[in-house]
Amino acid sequence: MTGRLIGVGVGPGDPELLTLKALDALKSADVVAYFAKAGNESNARAVVAAHLNGAEELPLLYPVTTEVPKETAAYRDAIRDFYDVSAAAVASHLDDGRDVAVLSEGDPMFYGSYMHIHVRLSERYPTEVVAGVTGMSGCWSMTDAPMTQGDDIFTVLPGTLPEYELERRLADTNAAVVMKIGRHLPKIRRACERAGCLDRAIYVERGTMANAAVMKLTDKLDTAAPYFAIVLVPGWEQRR
Amino acid sequence: MTGRLIGVGVGPGDPELLTLKALDALKSADVVAYFAKAGNESNARAVVAAHLNGAEELPLLYPVTTEVPKETAAYRDAIRDFYDVSAAAVASHLDDGRDVAVLSEGDPMFYGSYMHIHVRLSERYPTEVVAGVTGMSGCWSMTDAPMTQGDDIFTVLPGTLPEYELERRLADTNAAVVMKIGRHLPKIRRACERAGCLDRAIYVERGTMANAAVMKLTDKLDTAAPYFAIVLVPGWEQRR
Repeated sequence: MTGRLIGVGVGPGDPELLTLKALDALKSADVVAYFAKAGNESNARAVVAAHLNGAEELPLLYPVTTEVPKETAAYRDAIRDFYDVSAAAVASHLDDGRDVAVLSEGDPMFYGSYMHIHVRLSERYPTEVVAGVTGMSGCWSMTDAPMTQGDDIFTVLPGTLPEYELERRLADTNAAVVMKIGRHLPKIRRACERAGCLDRAIYVERGTMANAAVMKLTDKLDTAAPYFAIVLVPGWEQRR
Repeated sequence: MTGRLIGVGVGPGDPELLTLKALDALKSADVVAYFAKAGNESNARAVVAAHLNGAEELPLLYPVTTEVPKETAAYRDAIRDFYDVSAAAVASHLDDGRDVAVLSEGDPMFYGSYMHIHVRLSERYPTEVVAGVTGMSGCWSMTDAPMTQGDDIFTVLPGTLPEYELERRLADTNAAVVMKIGRHLPKIRRACERAGCLDRAIYVERGTMANAAVMKLTDKLDTAAPYFAIVLVPGWEQRR
């Protein structure tokens, strides 16, 4: 008998936003695996730290790749190899009949690194995915902004898009979230202004964490922001 | 001292997808309010039924409006009056110093009816919103489909859109969710086909419930579907 693979969404960062199902999965798992950068604590592990009682831990440490530019085939190959090796490490426990919970910040199937394990193993092992509260839900619940209502169209955009693409798409949706801000902050601010949504755009850093920061995007004057900051453009403009 | 207004996301339907924070809010609330159609059980109340121990319940019952067409001003006025009256009923408890938890299926700020209470009361009373797992996260976690990865653009579309708008927007995104299916099912199927995503589209009914149904959209041949069914168009086509 092989073990079960369980992708566990741990939510946006506040340990109280764990689901009962995630807790059960953690308690019954023989092995708890999580991604982290070498030398850094895993954010997902930190969220569930109070509930890890005795399971074996399997850290999956991203290779240090500062010398290899991210746009190159060499970088993509290194990352792909890393996911292959990580999946093999998880599979080795599953082959021994041990249930492995792979932690995922937010929701596992929504931009989560768990999916790299999922696509490599889910056809070979019994697999379950435990949905989680997304990072963006955590962020907009901290603000006073209803995001979407009724027939609103909602769009999630990476801040890496070219400025004209950001502008076009922001002008063509009722509500939006822009992720991966980082050095793209000034470009995103310009795109919001040209799309007519700068006045209602909200900037959120470390959403749901104890040290979260929420402000109007017009008040965030820096030229860069953390990679995991997000910009919210609330919809439902009529508000009645 | 007035009471606190707490918008509580109860998740997509599986009671195990409640968060610890939602449970705490339910346990400490003096009053638990929820929307329902007259004569029907509230879905949100059903999700938390096992955890309601002694709080006063405040059902907010939508008026029966079968005689009034939904597109008319008369209907909109009736619904607006209903939200005004509902907010007043909640406010009356808050004025008496009682904490009121208003339940919301999924996530309160994401297409949730809780927001109609929120926009009417949050400036007058201390207010907190407890993020929840969205219905769409619950649905895609039941399928084997990674939804979004990396720089994917993700779009939520109401099935009420005209066919050419659905087609245009489905062709212009990496991943999508179409909500409010109902009698729009044939139109949505045609739009997916013309946008080139029909082969990977997934139809989900009653996601995360015991009687959930998941199938390829090409296998769902009916001319109509439940209003709350959704269609998923997974992104991350490369899957590596």
